[in-house]
Amino acid sequence: VPPQMGPLAASVILLVVSAVRGFPYTELAQWVDSHQEEYVEALRDWVAVESDSSNVLKRPELHRMMEMVAQKLRQMGGTVELVDVGEQELPDGSTLALPKVVTAQFGNDSNKSTVCVYGHVDVQPAKLEDGWATEPYNLTDINGNLYGRGASDNKAPVLAWIHAVQAYQALDVELPVNVKFIIEGMEETGSNGLDAMIVAQRDTFFSEVDYIIISDCGWLSRRPAITYGTRGNCYFYAEVEGPKKDLHSGVYGGAVVEPMVDLIGIMDTLISPSGKILIPGIREAVAPLSDEEWKMYQDIQFDMDNYKDKIGVSQLMYNNKVDLLAHLWRYPTVSIHGIEGAFSDPGTKTVIPAKVTAKFSIRQVPNMDPAAVKKQVTEYLHSVFAKRKSPNKLKVTMVIGAKPWLADTQHVLYEAGKAAVKRVFQMDPDLIREGGTIPVAKFQDVTGKSIVMLPIGGFDDGLHSQNEKISRYNYIEGTKLFIAYLNEVSQIT
Amino acid sequence: VPPQMGPLAASVILLVVSAVRGFPYTELAQWVDSHQEEYVEALRDWVAVESDSSNVLKRPELHRMMEMVAQKLRQMGGTVELVDVGEQELPDGSTLALPKVVTAQFGNDSNKSTVCVYGHVDVQPAKLEDGWATEPYNLTDINGNLYGRGASDNKAPVLAWIHAVQAYQALDVELPVNVKFIIEGMEETGSNGLDAMIVAQRDTFFSEVDYIIISDCGWLSRRPAITYGTRGNCYFYAEVEGPKKDLHSGVYGGAVVEPMVDLIGIMDTLISPSGKILIPGIREAVAPLSDEEWKMYQDIQFDMDNYKDKIGVSQLMYNNKVDLLAHLWRYPTVSIHGIEGAFSDPGTKTVIPAKVTAKFSIRQVPNMDPAAVKKQVTEYLHSVFAKRKSPNKLKVTMVIGAKPWLADTQHVLYEAGKAAVKRVFQMDPDLIREGGTIPVAKFQDVTGKSIVMLPIGGFDDGLHSQNEKISRYNYIEGTKLFIAYLNEVSQIT
Repeated sequence: VPPQMGPLAASVILLVVSAVRGFPYTELAQWVDSHQEEYVEALRDWVAVESDSSNVLKRPELHRMMEMVAQKLRQMGGTVELVDVGEQELPDGSTLALPKVVTAQFGNDSNKSTVCVYGHVDVQPAKLEDGWATEPYNLTDINGNLYGRGASDNKAPVLAWIHAVQAYQALDVELPVNVKFIIEGMEETGSNGLDAMIVAQRDTFFSEVDYIIISDCGWLSRRPAITYGTRGNCYFYAEVEGPKKDLHSGVYGGAVVEPMVDLIGIMDTLISPSGKILIPGIREAVAPLSDEEWKMYQDIQFDMDNYKDKIGVSQLMYNNKVDLLAHLWRYPTVSIHGIEGAFSDPGTKTVIPAKVTAKFSIRQVPNMDPAAVKKQVTEYLHSVFAKRKSPNKLKVTMVIGAKPWLADTQHVLYEAGKAAVKRVFQMDPDLIREGGTIPVAKFQDVTGKSIVMLPIGGFDDGLHSQNEKISRYNYIEGTKLFIAYLNEVSQIT
Repeated sequence: VPPQMGPLAASVILLVVSAVRGFPYTELAQWVDSHQEEYVEALRDWVAVESDSSNVLKRPELHRMMEMVAQKLRQMGGTVELVDVGEQELPDGSTLALPKVVTAQFGNDSNKSTVCVYGHVDVQPAKLEDGWATEPYNLTDINGNLYGRGASDNKAPVLAWIHAVQAYQALDVELPVNVKFIIEGMEETGSNGLDAMIVAQRDTFFSEVDYIIISDCGWLSRRPAITYGTRGNCYFYAEVEGPKKDLHSGVYGGAVVEPMVDLIGIMDTLISPSGKILIPGIREAVAPLSDEEWKMYQDIQFDMDNYKDKIGVSQLMYNNKVDLLAHLWRYPTVSIHGIEGAFSDPGTKTVIPAKVTAKFSIRQVPNMDPAAVKKQVTEYLHSVFAKRKSPNKLKVTMVIGAKPWLADTQHVLYEAGKAAVKRVFQMDPDLIREGGTIPVAKFQDVTGKSIVMLPIGGFDDGLHSQNEKISRYNYIEGTKLFIAYLNEVSQIT
């Protein structure tokens, strides 16, 4: 720009140049590079909020988090709403206000396509004493990795979308599509309230939406990926209740049928040592593996040894790539997360716990149905418990029931994704599925819109575990990917 | 006492009266009654100290507790020592100073017998959120019951012995026997350090001791009891370690052999639903039930319905009195206390825990041997684990190994106990055994002295569980029982 021009004239020139030579990707990408530190600070502010949706005591923090998201989108000039989605019923029968869902809109040009970006800003629990090397709610930069709970899942990806829109705005480049946001705060516990909200807004907020984009996932290796399937999740509580209070195991041991022994007995009937689910009906519902699928898995770049090293195990459940990927993506599994109510602290308490609750979940795949799974699990556990002839009481509750999702990798949204990845990273993406659960199935069912999952998280980000992080590379290049993707979507005819 | 006399002259008269008419039980008992509030305050001070020996973070409180005990005994004019018993090795290999053991002596008359009272002032863990109705470390009087952790186990009984000696001192009644105290702070975790200390002091502190008295137990009903047997305890950690850190159960579920599933699998092989211990060799070691024993149990006053009500269960492991008492007192049992390292908080964390440690214990009875049990359990768990062909690592550790104990109910110490109970309560005591573990076996083995267990705790005191208490009645009448017992022991020829 010639030095004698003012900023307004310079902007006009830039727009003219853009119009002539098309999409100004290089300028937008440079803007992103030069604002890296500002983006890291924005992430630090968000990570500092302990927005743990599974802990009811942290609910005020979660409400504050949603307000912060709304505030940021308002400052960018968006049309923002905080949508009340009602209350949550707790296991003890009491109720608690759900965090509001934030919706926002940028652009309202009926000649353009409209995309809706979904994300969440709640997190899994995290405590320093769980084995974190740094304070989990204090974003810490170590060698270009940004450590903190929620950094990768899903706060940085939500911010990257926000930064993408901000970059267009800062350079006065017109958004090539209308952009909507829907940001929730209950994803980690099953997106309570979102279903009803989507249904309620199907003919309003969602009516002009053409495509839904979700970036709540990660790559499989250092190669960028696009995700075309997720597993769902049915999360259960199995509570065994016996004596009216905890008992001394010396004084009462031998006289009472111990709830902990009953609970361990029934938990031991869920899955075999070799990973076979023992609950009748579960495996029968799973779609058979096609030859085509087998071939796709066979072609995916995936280093078994590297994967074992990353996890730190000498042996996986399956020792070939296809079986392993299939069991991560398209077969169900059972995980037993822990037991509430028993003695879990360090030391040697000699107690017979009176009421113990096992937490376990079953990952859902096509063609499983959460309602059927609920029935199968409940009936099975009651039947194995009945065989024990225990005087204790068993209560089985399904507290999360999230469906799986599967997309067509030939769809225009996926072609746009491949082109955007090619532009930013100069390579083709892996087409992968995701073992985790995202409320994508609900969007598909209710809105009937096409959905794409476009991850920017690294393959080793440690979601849900200690020392979660996102790298500066993924955060910044991810922002550029979103910038490029908006342009590619605008080219869909 | 005539009004014109001074206090000294009055005391002289009292002593002369005592000498003439013998043991002044009535005066001593009245003294106790009139000092009830002072005794409750003393208990409040002790309960306020969170002397949890199983939690290494509370060790400073435990040291403070031992100092308080020593200080009180010094103020009474006893010859007091705080005996260093060395260090404790923690599972991670580090070491920690053990609480000192307090010894004290009152009287040194070689013409009298010498009794040694054993007690402990450490407690089991307790938190309000475990389900306590009151703050566990704030002694709370509700309808004559004094609620607080350690109230009955074992702080009030130790104080009752102290008050007994104080009453003799206050009324200038000569102690009929020499009284020694040995008070420790590691009983709840297996009396670490006490063994070696007893061995070291066998020919010094213990050389002039004739009888050892332990009041770390409770009655079976509202009828006072004397205890002639205890079970020991072998406490185990079974640790299964897999991935190097916790994993997201969506992202990794199906790929890894989960440590929690392995651990539940092996814990489920310890005991059958009907209470049969499945570890080879354990049941075979147990002394057979004699006809005489059967008859004794048959004669004991024990209300099964009342016992069920107290525990709050509809059905016990055995539905007749003899089987039930036998399994509480003279058969071993397995209790699984909890799992450390898994998700034990409220909420729905979707985690695959990387390292999980089950805590379980086996109550020991004659003729089991803790060293043999350690070998049997370790070999058995490794054999069932090996069958799973898991890549995870199992480590089995026995952290407590305490032997059982059995006394002769015809011994003079027991006859003295029956006489003391008769004087204070006007009834005969039950002769019972104790399911819990007291380091009594060690005293017997090392010192060769005769031992009696003389409980004052109520049958419903809730040791080791929520809302532990001792009643004012048991605390105060128990103090009188100890006063009477010292006199009865002095009559033994």
